[in-house]
Amino acid sequence: MQRVPLASHQLALMDKYWRASNYLSVGQIYLHNNPLLTRPLALDDVKRILLGHWGTTPGQNFIYVHLNRIIKQYDLSMIFISGPGHGGPAVVSQTYLEGSYSEIYPEISQDAAGLQKLFKQFSFPGGIPSHASPECPGSIHEGGELGYSLSHAFGAVFDNPELIAACVIGDGEAETGPLATAWHSNKFLNPVSDGVVLPILHLNGYKIANPTILARIGGEELEQLLRGYGWQPIFVAGSDPKSMHEAMALALDQAVHEIKDIKAKAAQQGAFERPRWPMIVLKSPKGWTGPKTVDGVPIEGTFHSHQVPISSPAAHPEHLPLLEEWLRSYRPEELFDENGRLLEALAELAPKGNRRMGANPHANGGLLLKPLAMPDFKEFACDVPNHGVMGIGDTHVLGPFLRDVVALNPDNFRVFGPDETISNGLVALFDTTQRQWMGANDSNDEHLGPRGRVMEMLSEHQCQGWLEGYLLTGRHGLFNCYEAFIHIIDSMFNQHAKWLKVAGQLPWRPKIASLNYLLASHVWRQDHNGFSHQDPGFIDHVVNKKSSIARVYLPPDANCLLSVMDHCLRSRHYVNVVIAGKHAAPQWLDKEAAAEHCAAGIGIWPWASNLDQAQSADVVMACCGDVPTLETLAAVSILREALPTLKIQVVNVVDLMKLQAEYEHPHGLSDHAFDALFTTDKPVIFAFHAYPSLIHKLTYQRTNHSNIHVHGYHEEGTITTAFDMTVLNKIDRFHLVMDAIDRLPQTGEKGRALKQALTDKLTEHRLYINEFGEDMPEIREWRWSCDNAEQ
Amino acid sequence: MQRVPLASHQLALMDKYWRASNYLSVGQIYLHNNPLLTRPLALDDVKRILLGHWGTTPGQNFIYVHLNRIIKQYDLSMIFISGPGHGGPAVVSQTYLEGSYSEIYPEISQDAAGLQKLFKQFSFPGGIPSHASPECPGSIHEGGELGYSLSHAFGAVFDNPELIAACVIGDGEAETGPLATAWHSNKFLNPVSDGVVLPILHLNGYKIANPTILARIGGEELEQLLRGYGWQPIFVAGSDPKSMHEAMALALDQAVHEIKDIKAKAAQQGAFERPRWPMIVLKSPKGWTGPKTVDGVPIEGTFHSHQVPISSPAAHPEHLPLLEEWLRSYRPEELFDENGRLLEALAELAPKGNRRMGANPHANGGLLLKPLAMPDFKEFACDVPNHGVMGIGDTHVLGPFLRDVVALNPDNFRVFGPDETISNGLVALFDTTQRQWMGANDSNDEHLGPRGRVMEMLSEHQCQGWLEGYLLTGRHGLFNCYEAFIHIIDSMFNQHAKWLKVAGQLPWRPKIASLNYLLASHVWRQDHNGFSHQDPGFIDHVVNKKSSIARVYLPPDANCLLSVMDHCLRSRHYVNVVIAGKHAAPQWLDKEAAAEHCAAGIGIWPWASNLDQAQSADVVMACCGDVPTLETLAAVSILREALPTLKIQVVNVVDLMKLQAEYEHPHGLSDHAFDALFTTDKPVIFAFHAYPSLIHKLTYQRTNHSNIHVHGYHEEGTITTAFDMTVLNKIDRFHLVMDAIDRLPQTGEKGRALKQALTDKLTEHRLYINEFGEDMPEIREWRWSCDNAEQ
Repeated sequence: MQRVPLASHQLALMDKYWRASNYLSVGQIYLHNNPLLTRPLALDDVKRILLGHWGTTPGQNFIYVHLNRIIKQYDLSMIFISGPGHGGPAVVSQTYLEGSYSEIYPEISQDAAGLQKLFKQFSFPGGIPSHASPECPGSIHEGGELGYSLSHAFGAVFDNPELIAACVIGDGEAETGPLATAWHSNKFLNPVSDGVVLPILHLNGYKIANPTILARIGGEELEQLLRGYGWQPIFVAGSDPKSMHEAMALALDQAVHEIKDIKAKAAQQGAFERPRWPMIVLKSPKGWTGPKTVDGVPIEGTFHSHQVPISSPAAHPEHLPLLEEWLRSYRPEELFDENGRLLEALAELAPKGNRRMGANPHANGGLLLKPLAMPDFKEFACDVPNHGVMGIGDTHVLGPFLRDVVALNPDNFRVFGPDETISNGLVALFDTTQRQWMGANDSNDEHLGPRGRVMEMLSEHQCQGWLEGYLLTGRHGLFNCYEAFIHIIDSMFNQHAKWLKVAGQLPWRPKIASLNYLLASHVWRQDHNGFSHQDPGFIDHVVNKKSSIARVYLPPDANCLLSVMDHCLRSRHYVNVVIAGKHAAPQWLDKEAAAEHCAAGIGIWPWASNLDQAQSADVVMACCGDVPTLETLAAVSILREALPTLKIQVVNVVDLMKLQAEYEHPHGLSDHAFDALFTTDKPVIFAFHAYPSLIHKLTYQRTNHSNIHVHGYHEEGTITTAFDMTVLNKIDRFHLVMDAIDRLPQTGEKGRALKQALTDKLTEHRLYINEFGEDMPEIREWRWSCDNAEQ
Repeated sequence: MQRVPLASHQLALMDKYWRASNYLSVGQIYLHNNPLLTRPLALDDVKRILLGHWGTTPGQNFIYVHLNRIIKQYDLSMIFISGPGHGGPAVVSQTYLEGSYSEIYPEISQDAAGLQKLFKQFSFPGGIPSHASPECPGSIHEGGELGYSLSHAFGAVFDNPELIAACVIGDGEAETGPLATAWHSNKFLNPVSDGVVLPILHLNGYKIANPTILARIGGEELEQLLRGYGWQPIFVAGSDPKSMHEAMALALDQAVHEIKDIKAKAAQQGAFERPRWPMIVLKSPKGWTGPKTVDGVPIEGTFHSHQVPISSPAAHPEHLPLLEEWLRSYRPEELFDENGRLLEALAELAPKGNRRMGANPHANGGLLLKPLAMPDFKEFACDVPNHGVMGIGDTHVLGPFLRDVVALNPDNFRVFGPDETISNGLVALFDTTQRQWMGANDSNDEHLGPRGRVMEMLSEHQCQGWLEGYLLTGRHGLFNCYEAFIHIIDSMFNQHAKWLKVAGQLPWRPKIASLNYLLASHVWRQDHNGFSHQDPGFIDHVVNKKSSIARVYLPPDANCLLSVMDHCLRSRHYVNVVIAGKHAAPQWLDKEAAAEHCAAGIGIWPWASNLDQAQSADVVMACCGDVPTLETLAAVSILREALPTLKIQVVNVVDLMKLQAEYEHPHGLSDHAFDALFTTDKPVIFAFHAYPSLIHKLTYQRTNHSNIHVHGYHEEGTITTAFDMTVLNKIDRFHLVMDAIDRLPQTGEKGRALKQALTDKLTEHRLYINEFGEDMPEIREWRWSCDNAEQ
């Protein structure tokens, strides 16, 4: 196809549309009243407090207007991702002009009254922030925290072969680590079965008060960098609107044609070669079309245009005419009719219906969400003929279940992880799928292919960002990760949880699938890693977020893991954190018991306890997590053998949030139910997977709280055996028993003797492990053998 | 200078040295006994449990041997940073061979007995992990979590003009975001006053089970990428040892000459142009020199060589001869004498004394640490003629103090931040220094220069990594950041805190300067940001780490901030988190009172309380953080006016860890001291800066815990005024008073009336803010005016 410059009258119309959007953007920052400047600007027309960000806005408006043109011309399905910080005025102006804003918010109507409200709400208390927040139609990316736009864009187009995600990347944002590695996502994109990401690197030269790196390395280095990342950059640079419109239109035509060529060629050939996708580099002045100077300070093209270029006319009366001049420079009277509606000739430039980027359903994923086709998890359960039978590793049991979820949902579910999927015990996935990989291949590679459902890149940021984009556009997924290193995405989790909270309050945004974490390779197994790989604190971080969003599960064995994961994959609009082991470990519950236990989330294990219904316990031995459950049951068996008259109640916690008060978390137990499990006055020895203080934080209001004694991770550990890790942190069976004895004076002489014996045992353990480097046979070979005869 | 290939006999010796180090590396993974293979390998000689990582090791050994050669030849001061995961066997072998290991650990002697211990401790319970952990001489970078090697390398060489940090970067690690952006650090390096980073990108092709991106994009794209990042790559590729030795020696000669040329030219010209520094790309097989195949599976050059290539001979007897063959392929009898000491001719290849990379004092920064020259913080204090006088913004008072710290320590102290230094109120720094910047300049830039002490890149990872490298090599610094976004480096904080814990237990590693965070732009001021910028949870994350490391300060005003920062900058081996405001806010304490209050860390404010020494309080109004202090004092003044007979004790907390039990944190108050502040039975209304549960977590064991009612951040907020943020989260003065009344039935009718009045006030507030977008005048203009007449 031939590249023909657009007719100048069309470019002139586009320039008017751009002026209209810039006018609305300045209006949002400044105007309280007189939205169409139908009378001279008065002090009273200006907001009392001036907030917001101008710098990035005109460039993003420029891009949006040009994208509208190619959407119409080529009938594209496109979404807009606003990566630079504070592009809110642009996306709000654009979705207002195209009409999608007023459809969702009818009170922000397409007339003078609506305009006035549009202006007022911006950066106004209780109004809308200066980012592309969930309230903004067409957005899947807020961008308050920078660096994730390109990852979100890729996540959005995976398995959406008709979709193009136009992703504006700020040159500030481009300095972040997550963005710097996200360019490499093109090695994972299938040109046949996936859609397309069109990055538009927006070089406006400055961050808040600094130049940006990419704007200052020169065109040659920048081109090398982008080509080195595997892209084909098309450069558009300048400040004269007319020539910039021409150049941008040509660049986008070129990009569309290259995209179509790549897609066509790939469809013919299959998708065996990684293409060099086009991208745009747009270099335009920061604060473009804004005031050149204010009070003698240069504004346009400098970092001084970052926020509000003309400060308060109330404090500086000479600023009022400057502001009026700036606003009138867009000639609103040529753009809007007397009622404040965009002129029909201009409105015609926007795409129609769902082609409008503010109305594309891909940017409101809940609209498109299909439930997963789910296999029956019980068919994957392991046999548990007796409590404590040795398993193969809990995540290894989960693997075949996830394999079948993948098989049943070939275009709707992906598994993400930083090259730990096999290490985390999920190798069964590769029975049915591969790792998605468009890079070069080598004969020694395994499980790589151009249509894999497993996404592995050694970047937790990338895994998280891709998954978020995939979920936000209405699909399902799972992130599997080492427990310690999931902290790498703490801040991305924050932003996603915040997005979910706000989106959940918007009736026009239906719920999306939950973000599911499977944290295997956890703190208690450090056989060949060490202290650097130990941190169970992600759940502390998660529970700080809204209780309507945060869910934490610690299944004690494989069948419980299956049940929990089945629940999580069916759930909506949560963040589910599931912590599970991958090493061979004892199994406690058969599939029916597991389903029942997980549905309750917490419960007494009567077979492990030694009291009848009618009896009351002397002590509660509670546990949460696979290793704590093992150590607790081993402690219980020591206690039951040595002190048979002691009445022990064993409580296992799967759903951590059951512990919190019912008015603090929807899963929280009533005080009555809690007391039935933990008593109101008996000692509770609680073995917990993570930092002990989390249990105190969740239970501090409970009746018996002062008797809850939590054992957990204390930042003690090195490279050592699984059991020794528990000893170093005093969560092993021996320390649990010794603690129980300390809390139970009635155990008397027998208790004291037992404690001494266990102290000796710990010494023996230390000597043995120092000598042989493995645990004593009695530890390795211990099996539960004392079910309650009553049960 | 001419590049002359090394004499072949020298290369032959280097090859032997390499073989020796590879032999020791395999020995660490496998051998329990028979360390010199003086007799045939028996099953008993092999460790029972085989752990560790071979894949990256031979390549790192190769690099180290070649670096030793250039260190000697050019008399370089160089440190070695082992970026790829699990390079432990290499750095341990190398430091053992050069003698630095045995100097620190004399029991690991340079003989057969020492070798046996060296082998046994590796990946053995309680031994050393498979990374370059703190226990390893010459290391400043553990690399358990990947991605920070290059940032650490740059941090190490800032202000160390004679130092070269040789930084091995794994091709897996290179996929992480932090590493991907760290390449751009060359824009911040001054070739005159800073040292040099020599990156060695090690392409061994595979991560755990996947190919790496950079190994599969082809040489042309890779060269473009690295040149685009601003480097001059020198490629060395192959697998034949002889030709690889020749190529690597030539490449390193070339790199040294280019470095010397750049440094010489820069010294002549000043440092106005950013040079293109050399770097090495080493492409060698993963698991180089290891077994080609095992059980028919290819090993060398594939991901199967990642961990232990030959699995247990105990379980697979046919593996024993394979292992012996592999070990003997290095011909240990040609390398070590009969006592197990490296032959003299080989030992000669290592540098001497502190030129050995395991002994370079820069890698043990405490050895070089000089105390900061400190100005008297009291000279920067603001006048506080009466309690509650309006200040200019607390960090704005801190700015001149930090400015003088910079001026007094021109080569020993830097301030890091992601372009927020001015935004965070520290503009005074630019009175005396600039932002370090070697990029191109523009006439509109401000405060940029080639020798600035302020390091700004829009990457929190980069700021943190640079600062860590700077501190670990014995200097001082401060990271200023928005509070919400410091979560971006949660996981880097973890790793640094873990490093400090372990290093603190090693007598040969003297303490280093603390890592100081200044978190301004905090959760309570969202005037022009919004929900995405709100997260006060970093301190929750920090207090999970060892109490010997973690310190958290929330100064209530500017003079307290000065006192706290003075303390932090003088402290050693901690992580200090300081949270402070930047907006104009009331000031409470003059410089003497502030110093006294901060030294205590917590205390009653008698002037704000209304009880005599002899009286006991009816209620404690406690506060921690600047905004909570303001709201608490406003609440106290409402209570004192409306209910003058109520006896109120006001407690302010600066040092958060004072709240924890004394046996849990060295700063913790005794129960007696705590009870004196918080009573044993009276209601405590506690206004806290962050998530309320943190206070419960710290105080759950205190006598009066059940009466402590905490107000804090509840994930409620949007873009709004400072006061409205407190209302949305119910930590404002009105909610505090209403809560107090609820806890004080004795306030009776008067209390109920006050509560009703405040409910009405909150309605009025909501109406006012919706109308005008700012707080009611009575809020804006409120000033404390009711000092206790008794004081």
